Formats: sequence, C-alpha cells, structure tokens
Amino acid sequence: MNVEYINPFLHSAITVFDTMLGCRLIRKEPFVKGGFQPEHEVSGIIGLSGKAKGTVVLSLCREAALHAAETLLGERPTSIDGDVSDAVGELTNIIAGQAKAQLEHLELSVSLPNVITGKGHAVEFPKKVTPICIPFDCEWGYVAVEIGLVELPVEADEEMAEQVGAL
Amino acid sequence: MNVEYINPFLHSAITVFDTMLGCRLIRKEPFVKGGFQPEHEVSGIIGLSGKAKGTVVLSLCREAALHAAETLLGERPTSIDGDVSDAVGELTNIIAGQAKAQLEHLELSVSLPNVITGKGHAVEFPKKVTPICIPFDCEWGYVAVEIGLVELPVEADEEMAEQVGAL
Repeated sequence: MNVEYINPFLHSAITVFDTMLGCRLIRKEPFVKGGFQPEHEVSGIIGLSGKAKGTVVLSLCREAALHAAETLLGERPTSIDGDVSDAVGELTNIIAGQAKAQLEHLELSVSLPNVITGKGHAVEFPKKVTPICIPFDCEWGYVAVEIGLVELPVEADEEMAEQVGAL
Repeated sequence: MNVEYINPFLHSAITVFDTMLGCRLIRKEPFVKGGFQPEHEVSGIIGLSGKAKGTVVLSLCREAALHAAETLLGERPTSIDGDVSDAVGELTNIIAGQAKAQLEHLELSVSLPNVITGKGHAVEFPKKVTPICIPFDCEWGYVAVEIGLVELPVEADEEMAEQVGAL
C-alpha cells in the first residue's frame, strides 16, 4: 500500500478522538498487518471505493469502546450494546470521512459503517492486500486504525476479483 | 430498505453457490434483522457505495466455510485460516458483483471484501438502517446473506453521518 495513504487516517483518528471525545491518542509505530492478529472486542469497519478500493477499520478494546460511547451519549452503557455499536460506527464514519477529504484525487466514497462485536474476532483483508495497522495508546486502553487500500488501474473496477483475493 | 433490493442478492447467492461450489442453497424466509442476532463463525463483508450506500454480508457456519474453501482450493483446510478467509472474501465479492449488475440504476461500486473470523461475532448495522437477512439451508449447514442498503438523496453523500447512525 502507498505509504502516503497512512497519514490522512492517522491524523484523522487523532483529531476525531481529540475533538469529539477529548481523548488523546498517542501514536505508536505503524506496522504491516500480516496473518491473524491480536484480536479486539469492537471494530468499526467501512468500505471505500472510487479510484481506489479499500477498508478502514477502527478497533477498540472493550474499555475504550465503552468510554467512547459514554462520552458521546452522556451515560455509560452497561455492556457492548447497540449504543456502543452506533457510537463506534459513527466514529469510524467520521474518521473515514476526514481522511477521504485529504485524499481527494482518489474520489473515494464510503459505504455504511458496520460494527463487529464479539470477543476474539479478527478482521481479515484479502491476501494480496497489505493492510497497515496504526496502533494507539490512550487512557482508555487499546485503539487501532487499520487501512487496506488498493489503487485501481483506470476502468479496472470489474476486474478487481482477479486482482484482489482471486483464488 | 426497499424490498426490490432483496431479490438480486438472493438470486446471486443461489447462482454463485450453485455454479462455483456445486452447492444448492435452499432459501428460507427473509427477515428484518434487528438487535444482536445469531452469531456466525465466518462473515465476508463488502461495502457498497454509489446512489445508495450499504453493506452485503455473507455469513457461514464453520462447516460451510470449510467446505466452500475445500471446493475452491481442492484441499480441505484444517482450520479457519487465511485460505478460508480468501475463499469467503471472494465469494462475497462475486455475490455482491452479480447483484450490483442487477441494480444498475444505483451505480454501485464495491469496496474490498473483508472477512471476519471468530466464534460468536456479530455484524451490526447502524440503528437507522433496516438490514434484511436471507437465511439458507444447505448440505454444509448454515449460510446467510444480509443486506443493508440506503438510497441517498442526490448530492447528500456528505450528510450521511447525519442520516445514518447519527448520535
């Protein structure tokens, strides 16, 4: 993946957590995500398409997800419920939206956010994609943003099946 | 969600399982997915954007995922590994692609497929979306296709945050 795509997502995550949640994210070293990875409890996932295709994943540990929802809703959810899911989906949407604005030349549009819940789930990208994971520390625990983005040759939209994840 | 969107995904799933896997899917009654649902072991998830935004999820029980990968790869994986993940991602991609072709007026483009693994995960849609679940029986066990698709008012792309899943 083009490393120039990393910074927009990194900065967007830091800004959104700071302005919407008052939570300071401390960036750690981005790394190439390979194989099955440390697993999270809540992941917001949003698809990107346009002159590139990809996915942004916002993963949070249980505590970080509960704190984020509490900050947005004014009340602490008692479990990872629909409110937490909506809060995480919305954060993912805004992070993707801000990063998208910085990647104007790719003319990205975003899909609906979905939220994956469940202890020990893993989000896998197609084998031929090289997703980058940006881990963060914060007072609430573990937060990470993962991005896998593939630029498309012009007019190759229909051929993606052959290029990405083909068997 | 507009019920006319259900059939393209339903037929596409049946056709893809039949032609690519030689597996006959028997449709059961589609239902509106609400709240936290029966959980799956492997889910392929793909974002759609264009004149509508949405997500297609292909969920499989462990046995169905292993059988599907075995049929595509010619060898049975010993666990839910990267090969199974790629096989499920590819099936999701092809099902979404075929359905997209039947929904030409929405000018949909698809994101990368991602695959969620992990026992007991759930894929949540934003609260304001009404996803439809189409369950199927087959000789390998449980398969389901879930679709949540929201038509956008023209030029409303940027306002999605307010319409879908806003807090």
